[in-house]
Amino acid sequence: MSAAVIGYDQAMGRWEPNARGRLEQAALELYVERGFEQTTVAEIAQRAGLTERTFFRHFADKREVLFQGAASLQELLVNAVAGTPASSAPIDAIAAALAAAGAVLGERRESARQRQTVIAANPELRERELIKLASLATALANALRARGVRDPTAGLAAEAGIAVFKIAFERWVEESNQRDLPLLMRESLDELRAVTAGG
Amino acid sequence: MSAAVIGYDQAMGRWEPNARGRLEQAALELYVERGFEQTTVAEIAQRAGLTERTFFRHFADKREVLFQGAASLQELLVNAVAGTPASSAPIDAIAAALAAAGAVLGERRESARQRQTVIAANPELRERELIKLASLATALANALRARGVRDPTAGLAAEAGIAVFKIAFERWVEESNQRDLPLLMRESLDELRAVTAGG
Repeated sequence: MSAAVIGYDQAMGRWEPNARGRLEQAALELYVERGFEQTTVAEIAQRAGLTERTFFRHFADKREVLFQGAASLQELLVNAVAGTPASSAPIDAIAAALAAAGAVLGERRESARQRQTVIAANPELRERELIKLASLATALANALRARGVRDPTAGLAAEAGIAVFKIAFERWVEESNQRDLPLLMRESLDELRAVTAGG
Repeated sequence: MSAAVIGYDQAMGRWEPNARGRLEQAALELYVERGFEQTTVAEIAQRAGLTERTFFRHFADKREVLFQGAASLQELLVNAVAGTPASSAPIDAIAAALAAAGAVLGERRESARQRQTVIAANPELRERELIKLASLATALANALRARGVRDPTAGLAAEAGIAVFKIAFERWVEESNQRDLPLLMRESLDELRAVTAGG
């Protein structure tokens, strides 16, 4: 295990296994129980059995716990687009990106559900989530342009992809049924095709 | 002419023709010239030949000059969806909403272009614009649900509609060609159809 995974708690003077994961779990629980605004970093650290100093070694602030995954999600989407054959249609590159995101995010349904609950309850966090999705759309459009896809096709395919991502993700965290995220991504893309075709 | 159009300048003690329009034009000019942050309400009022008090009778703050149209745009979109025949496919209701928005917004290209320049230059305003677009998508989805359109179709059709709106609007304010906004709305919707069909 790397030091980053174990997490050295300087204040306590020892190495803590999975400090980052414990802090994230403690934060999500407290944000759901008490609300995001009402939770302090001291409380998060205490519930995780760690110090505030350790929290700030892993996260810049309370909000970063909720948005830490944005950069790696963007990288995942962009790499998936870049990795599709040059002959693929833009929408197939987008489908590959959605499949990649679905496979990775789909592993963590419970924390995704907690996160969605917290964000839905806080206007500032909802705004931040919209900005994250818009950044992902911009990155996807740029990845398509890098493959030679012209505008407005690149922009439209990217926006369509993020619309499918958003709807599929909402269905996945909300629905009581057991369909997994990659399946919901594919279904939602098919439904978008049907909708735009006038079906 | 109504009092709202003329605009009574209480400080100057007289009725001013089109105070609101003059304030908007002065504000857009100054935001482009000096930047949104650097412009004061006093400067806007001075350029419009009006008082600060008159400004605040028309706008809550500097930002509202840029976002005053959001509520009426939303009403326009929702009414257009509600006004399409019950037998229309969801995407045709969305197309009707885009046509209505295109016809109204398309009349004011110069101020739309100024507004876009100002928003593009300011992160906070870009965030506000994203939030406006997300609100429009929510309103469109609700208008479709009110017609009996189920989810996820309602959500996907609404998101697709706002994606087309955004791309068409960007093309309209940026492009040097002379195509009008309603035409760009139709073209962009057709391109989205082609993209999702894999073309």
